[in-house]
Amino acid sequence: MNGLELGTIDPSARISRNVDIGQNVTIGCNCIVYDNVRIGAGSVIGPHCILGEPTMAFYRDRTYENAPLVIGADALLRAGSVLYAGSEFGDGFQTGGRVSIREGSKFGHHCRIGTLCDVQGFCDVGDYCNLHSNVHVGQMSSLGNFVWIFPYVVLTNDPNPPVGPLVGARIDDFAAVATMSVVLPGVHVGRDALVGAHSLVRKDVPPEAVVVGSPARQIGTIHDIKGRSDGQPVYPWREHFERGMPWEGIGYQTWNERRKAGLA
Amino acid sequence: MNGLELGTIDPSARISRNVDIGQNVTIGCNCIVYDNVRIGAGSVIGPHCILGEPTMAFYRDRTYENAPLVIGADALLRAGSVLYAGSEFGDGFQTGGRVSIREGSKFGHHCRIGTLCDVQGFCDVGDYCNLHSNVHVGQMSSLGNFVWIFPYVVLTNDPNPPVGPLVGARIDDFAAVATMSVVLPGVHVGRDALVGAHSLVRKDVPPEAVVVGSPARQIGTIHDIKGRSDGQPVYPWREHFERGMPWEGIGYQTWNERRKAGLA
Amino acid sequence: MNGLELGTIDPSARISRNVDIGQNVTIGCNCIVYDNVRIGAGSVIGPHCILGEPTMAFYRDRTYENAPLVIGADALLRAGSVLYAGSEFGDGFQTGGRVSIREGSKFGHHCRIGTLCDVQGFCDVGDYCNLHSNVHVGQMSSLGNFVWIFPYVVLTNDPNPPVGPLVGARIDDFAAVATMSVVLPGVHVGRDALVGAHSLVRKDVPPEAVVVGSPARQIGTIHDIKGRSDGQPVYPWREHFERGMPWEGIGYQTWNERRKAGLA
Repeated sequence: MNGLELGTIDPSARISRNVDIGQNVTIGCNCIVYDNVRIGAGSVIGPHCILGEPTMAFYRDRTYENAPLVIGADALLRAGSVLYAGSEFGDGFQTGGRVSIREGSKFGHHCRIGTLCDVQGFCDVGDYCNLHSNVHVGQMSSLGNFVWIFPYVVLTNDPNPPVGPLVGARIDDFAAVATMSVVLPGVHVGRDALVGAHSLVRKDVPPEAVVVGSPARQIGTIHDIKGRSDGQPVYPWREHFERGMPWEGIGYQTWNERRKAGLA
Repeated sequence: MNGLELGTIDPSARISRNVDIGQNVTIGCNCIVYDNVRIGAGSVIGPHCILGEPTMAFYRDRTYENAPLVIGADALLRAGSVLYAGSEFGDGFQTGGRVSIREGSKFGHHCRIGTLCDVQGFCDVGDYCNLHSNVHVGQMSSLGNFVWIFPYVVLTNDPNPPVGPLVGARIDDFAAVATMSVVLPGVHVGRDALVGAHSLVRKDVPPEAVVVGSPARQIGTIHDIKGRSDGQPVYPWREHFERGMPWEGIGYQTWNERRKAGLA
Repeated sequence: MNGLELGTIDPSARISRNVDIGQNVTIGCNCIVYDNVRIGAGSVIGPHCILGEPTMAFYRDRTYENAPLVIGADALLRAGSVLYAGSEFGDGFQTGGRVSIREGSKFGHHCRIGTLCDVQGFCDVGDYCNLHSNVHVGQMSSLGNFVWIFPYVVLTNDPNPPVGPLVGARIDDFAAVATMSVVLPGVHVGRDALVGAHSLVRKDVPPEAVVVGSPARQIGTIHDIKGRSDGQPVYPWREHFERGMPWEGIGYQTWNERRKAGLA
């Protein structure tokens, strides 16, 4: 391999002085690491990435200092991803290629952000959230834990564009928003809810509800949905899906019982 | 900082001979500036940008010469933006990361083009237009001044894809098109009009109209819309929004009176 | 020109040892070519491209070897495109800027994939397919020959996100899917069919049908569509469009007769 030699920092990478790089970190060719970036042990930063991209004030204010960018252990960033200064990412953070994440956001552990996602900043994201390709997360959005968002979904934030004031959407634990849907400003999608593809979500979605359409209307609950092959329930998805989840290999129920007992 | 030292041209940048670089221009690392590019004074070109990207003829015709790319003063291009040969941008032009703008387009002053926008070429854009992230502007589109277009909007141009003939959409001064809407070929969105999120606009939109839905239907005028908090009008937005506008600090009315009097 | 000197391999490009580069290939600056990539004669790889991007196993398995990436003759890849290891592309393959194509896919000859397209892998694509900008092709999608897909279309694959099992969409020869449409998992779009803009396609589309809406409903056949200017039929498009097609200059009918006679 070349351009990305595991465990090494490519000589073509530009690394600022005030950077804290953990043990066994890989940094690929042509990366830029600006001031005040911390990279956790075992992380792999693919080629052409930019870490600590300065915010607008950099260009205007001679006293500008980059806010810290903190990346946890064992991150894996695909080529060309750009993380702005002033955000924070838990352990096991993964991105696809050419992701952009702006300033002021906080991500929990084990989040995966797909190719070309665009997180606009000042967002709050829990643990084990999965954004598929090309998701647009407006400023001030809030995601719980184990949230799934599929390609080309937009979480908006301006009720009267461009006037504001901005108010983010909120997506609760275990909810899933299917492809090409828009969640309007301030809308709250409840725990375990499912938003169907190509929907426009104007009103709050109750927990476990299934909504579809433009504008979206509730058509039932997640318990009404059966698998095509066997006619068995497929939701809540956490009882039927394990890959990459902390309950992989033992199932959600067992994991959750252990967790409640303080064992996981 | 590194990879982007204000006021300097990074030694890793590839600069052609026939390039005209104004005073106090910054060019970041790994940029490519092809033939016949002019960059106005005070501009900042972020890392990994490509200016004057050759058009298809370059690969086929040995006598090819790059058409001029003209960038006004005080531009700010975020990392990885690609501007093709043969377009023209007024002063104060800004892009987010990884914008693509193809040949044959003309942008006025103080336009801002968000992350991942894709302008297909042969477009005519006025002054102070704002394209948020990931807007797709089809060939031959025409935008007035002070137009706002929000994420994932597509301005189309082919009434019978892929047969053509192409006919661009036209968006008039002060109009706003909300996220995930499609404007069909040749459609004319009137001055001050508002297109709601997730709409399919098949017919012309009158000035000051509000349209929503798929297909879009008029539900009122912008004067019917009241702010959530105070119940007061929020449109026309120019009377309620100032950031980045030429009337910042004095308000639209005062600015407009001064402008009419030849003072602004 | 600079950064992309036709017929040369830029010295800044990182080329692995086990790479097979045909005659008269161009590789632009800052490209990375990983192990086991084959590039056909006459191909042009623009700056900042990555060929043979390793799959996830690379980061986990010390015995990992890159699966072969095979690119046919006369390819033209625009700047910043990323092709993963383990896919195969016929002759005359073209991409716009910053395309991503993942592992396990097979493309026929003369396909053109627009700016920012995201092909998720394990897809089967025929000859002369055209994906316009920013198309998202889910894993396990299948496209025939001469298929057109327009900006921001999503071909999905998970009937019960994120549970699966995945089942791709299938688009037959000569079909066209207009902008911002979603094709649901396992849906089959028939030969010569047309999906209108901003549609949600939940059911199979018969050959030659025209469907529109969310959810999409059939409104007629392609023979009902007349050109705006002359009132003449415009579909099937292959009888009215030639640019870049193998029948350019002679028309579809003549080409097809020759083809049937074994002459084309």
